[in-house]
Amino acid sequence: MKKSALQKARAAYQPKLPIALKGAVKAVTGKPTQSVADQEEIKKLFPTTYGLPELQFENVPGTLRGKPLNVGVILSGGQAPGGHNVISGIFDGIKKINRDSRLFGFIMGPGGLVEHRYIELTASIIDEYRNTGGFDIIGSGRTKLETKEQFDAGLEILKELGITALVIIGGDDSNTNAAVLAEYYNGIGAGVQVIGCPKTIDGDLKNEMIETSFGFDTATKVYSEVIGNIERDCNSAKKYWHFIKLMGRSASHIALECALQTQPNVCIISEEVEAKNMTLAQIVDDLAKTVAARAEEGNNYGIVLIPEGLIEFIPAMKALIAELNDLLAKTEGFAKMEASEQRKYILEHLSADNAAVYDSLPHGVARQLTLDRDPHGNVQVSLIETEKLLSEMVGKRLEQMRAEGKYHGKYSAQHHFFGYEGRCADPSNFDADYCYALGYNAAQLINAGVTGYMSSVRNLVKPAVQWIAGGIPITMMMNMERRNGKMKPVIQKALVDLEGAPFQKFASQRADWALNTCYVYPGPIQYFGPAEVCDQPSLTLQCEHKGK
Amino acid sequence: MKKSALQKARAAYQPKLPIALKGAVKAVTGKPTQSVADQEEIKKLFPTTYGLPELQFENVPGTLRGKPLNVGVILSGGQAPGGHNVISGIFDGIKKINRDSRLFGFIMGPGGLVEHRYIELTASIIDEYRNTGGFDIIGSGRTKLETKEQFDAGLEILKELGITALVIIGGDDSNTNAAVLAEYYNGIGAGVQVIGCPKTIDGDLKNEMIETSFGFDTATKVYSEVIGNIERDCNSAKKYWHFIKLMGRSASHIALECALQTQPNVCIISEEVEAKNMTLAQIVDDLAKTVAARAEEGNNYGIVLIPEGLIEFIPAMKALIAELNDLLAKTEGFAKMEASEQRKYILEHLSADNAAVYDSLPHGVARQLTLDRDPHGNVQVSLIETEKLLSEMVGKRLEQMRAEGKYHGKYSAQHHFFGYEGRCADPSNFDADYCYALGYNAAQLINAGVTGYMSSVRNLVKPAVQWIAGGIPITMMMNMERRNGKMKPVIQKALVDLEGAPFQKFASQRADWALNTCYVYPGPIQYFGPAEVCDQPSLTLQCEHKGK
Repeated sequence: MKKSALQKARAAYQPKLPIALKGAVKAVTGKPTQSVADQEEIKKLFPTTYGLPELQFENVPGTLRGKPLNVGVILSGGQAPGGHNVISGIFDGIKKINRDSRLFGFIMGPGGLVEHRYIELTASIIDEYRNTGGFDIIGSGRTKLETKEQFDAGLEILKELGITALVIIGGDDSNTNAAVLAEYYNGIGAGVQVIGCPKTIDGDLKNEMIETSFGFDTATKVYSEVIGNIERDCNSAKKYWHFIKLMGRSASHIALECALQTQPNVCIISEEVEAKNMTLAQIVDDLAKTVAARAEEGNNYGIVLIPEGLIEFIPAMKALIAELNDLLAKTEGFAKMEASEQRKYILEHLSADNAAVYDSLPHGVARQLTLDRDPHGNVQVSLIETEKLLSEMVGKRLEQMRAEGKYHGKYSAQHHFFGYEGRCADPSNFDADYCYALGYNAAQLINAGVTGYMSSVRNLVKPAVQWIAGGIPITMMMNMERRNGKMKPVIQKALVDLEGAPFQKFASQRADWALNTCYVYPGPIQYFGPAEVCDQPSLTLQCEHKGK
Repeated sequence: MKKSALQKARAAYQPKLPIALKGAVKAVTGKPTQSVADQEEIKKLFPTTYGLPELQFENVPGTLRGKPLNVGVILSGGQAPGGHNVISGIFDGIKKINRDSRLFGFIMGPGGLVEHRYIELTASIIDEYRNTGGFDIIGSGRTKLETKEQFDAGLEILKELGITALVIIGGDDSNTNAAVLAEYYNGIGAGVQVIGCPKTIDGDLKNEMIETSFGFDTATKVYSEVIGNIERDCNSAKKYWHFIKLMGRSASHIALECALQTQPNVCIISEEVEAKNMTLAQIVDDLAKTVAARAEEGNNYGIVLIPEGLIEFIPAMKALIAELNDLLAKTEGFAKMEASEQRKYILEHLSADNAAVYDSLPHGVARQLTLDRDPHGNVQVSLIETEKLLSEMVGKRLEQMRAEGKYHGKYSAQHHFFGYEGRCADPSNFDADYCYALGYNAAQLINAGVTGYMSSVRNLVKPAVQWIAGGIPITMMMNMERRNGKMKPVIQKALVDLEGAPFQKFASQRADWALNTCYVYPGPIQYFGPAEVCDQPSLTLQCEHKGK
């Protein structure tokens, strides 16, 4: 691997550890826990791992020593900056406990466990990947660990390699599956502990005990860098409205964090759209009014941030998509109709409300809704280019307003979608430290002999030495939700809280940002400069901390 | 303006100056020059500013002193990182010469001169913008300074403000116009010097005496950062081909530099496509073969870089577009036809060769070619999403190959276009220093009393103190070219030289990059770290230097 100059320089960075994890470590047991909701059902589903106590580590005199540990690690789901540091943290942690400990990585995600693909992660491999972005050390995958067959197949290779603990690095679904696996292995006395680590750039895996998932900090800093650059371009050329869509699946945490960082003219928050029961037409109308108001001041330019999941949060669109899914499923020969015939058929067969919504969409988008469907026959909402949909509809609305004498400006748009640009960036100092601590801490949880816990490092707005390290029973974060028609125990997803401090801060300033030009240009992530530039956690985390 | 932490820290950066410009400065006059071609015609068009000598500055004992200078400055054309530092360099330069010197900025580009919109740039304004990206200090614009009426209108305000020198910061066209303006003002004895500064991220304004235009270094570093991040994602998930289009207008310098930085699987160079007289089908076929070859090794992923101007360099596409422009211009009522009727009409009326090319395009792209035409009725090639066009055609080609038993992989594509993300980034140390030196040097050219010169700072692969500073008569870079049907004197555009060292380095390694995975991850621009991370000039510049 040819390394860039930054990669070489960055390899020498020593992530900071909380004081609690330096030297010898004692596990202090807290009170028994219960799940956030549906306690009875979840207790029934997790007979041996429900109600476990929180754990907190404390630094004690002496040296860290223990039996050699054979540990397996899996990267699950989408990439997030810092995954390599979780792994190097686990490696250093188990080696510190006993130099004969060994770490095995399962290749390309959970599928590697089931299909027995693995490598041993030696010191020389680990050293190649310290403080780097990406999941390429062992690769990641989206296979879901859900069935007994998978669990048993995994156990075979774990037994063969003498692995007694498995760390699963993943998002809410992967950690849910980690809890199920922990319960299963515990229930059959397999002798394998399962520990989860909270990963996702989307920021939707968080709660009282997990302040943030790793990767969110770095990814939002990369997006904010390029958004800031576009803002500066926008403010120099003064001729375009830039519509910028941001990854983040259902939740709008990424868009909100980027808005706090860069102060764009508009940032749409899906959770607010749903709460206010807004229609697409209302969103477009609000946008057009902002464009027109800026035009009155001679400012025919601006920046709009759009969360990836928006469409599914617009109640009217959700209803339309649901009816379309049903309609298309029962219409034989639909694919063979001419495009114009398809359109006519749909308009005639949808309920009046949904037909009106369908008819209001630009033809290309309307057609997109009836094309590429997923293997279950569902409309693929993620393929809709929301940024283009909105800018086109805003353009049409502005022409109506012009005819009514309510708009006198020029309107020209550019479109962007950022996602892959940030998921594998070199981790910020925050993520490098946080991930390393999560991994090192996972090693302590293994050494403490527990299972079904998530590695928890808290107090994150403070310097790393003051961080609090411990373990949280995963069942504590669970409730029952309907998935594919069946009630399942899952970790509650954290959407943007409209009463929370980050959204409230945004809401209190956005009227000013909309009309005036208040752009902030964060610039690229810095690794070597002053602490106020290099070591700041996300504004979301800072607001949430202040809001407490 | 609310400032980010990086902006605050970066404001304190003191750009490095060449030793020649420190302290007192002496202008050493070189030999008379002549234009790169068409000497007789150009001499005739520039009777008073043709054949001037090169100038080189030398550091001499004593203190820099001179009369107060009243200077105007204009930012022309697209944004490029470092423009603010050129302006702060001019400001510091003329203040050093005499503290009573004054600097005026014309607002929103050359139009500000013609329409008498300006501000005085005071120390407090300048200090707000040191080492920042963007052109927002005074804005930029694309008005071309070409007519006597414009020149005379400009002279009015210059006289009114007592301005005796104008610095035009722009690309090849803007510097061509600067030379014409210099000749005009000189010819009528207006008493206004005109100095140019070489700006453009595209990298196509360079020659023997101008090693690079400013902004290229920073913009390509930002693009390389995000390309590297996408490569790492690609190499972790191993499931997508990413087609990445890069700004850069006609020339492929940006794509080539990014390829040298990140080592993608494929980088298309427009100049090579033209030189080899390649068809779109050949390009697609080459790409498909690379995809298939990687698939044979189990690697169903990769990275393709595409220069923005590609389509116009494909001879067959160029011919098609030319005929389409003619055909559509003379076809009344075309816009009112149904889409299918339009397609039929075009296929029937084009020459056989061009009809075949038209027919081979994906329908959406073919249709795009006949929609939005520019005010002159020409097809807007820049609206074609080349990255999607290529990935779609590659997908179809792969299906043919699969049917022939020549392809057995999976193919799924993602698309990106980077341009606005890099044009207004905070300048790299290289661009911060280079721009400041260009501006400071322009002040010395003004003090030396010359006109029609471009600010020239050379020896750029060496540390800044060793840079060579001076002035080059703009006419020296000119030749005669046909523009809008008329022969005009213009600065020769520098396209990628297929015999040059940067392309040769790329060409010697690309077979390896294509089949194997040799990605390099440059990471974000660093401003505070070790010199090998923060102070490297572009690889293009380094190769060109070695190649000499």
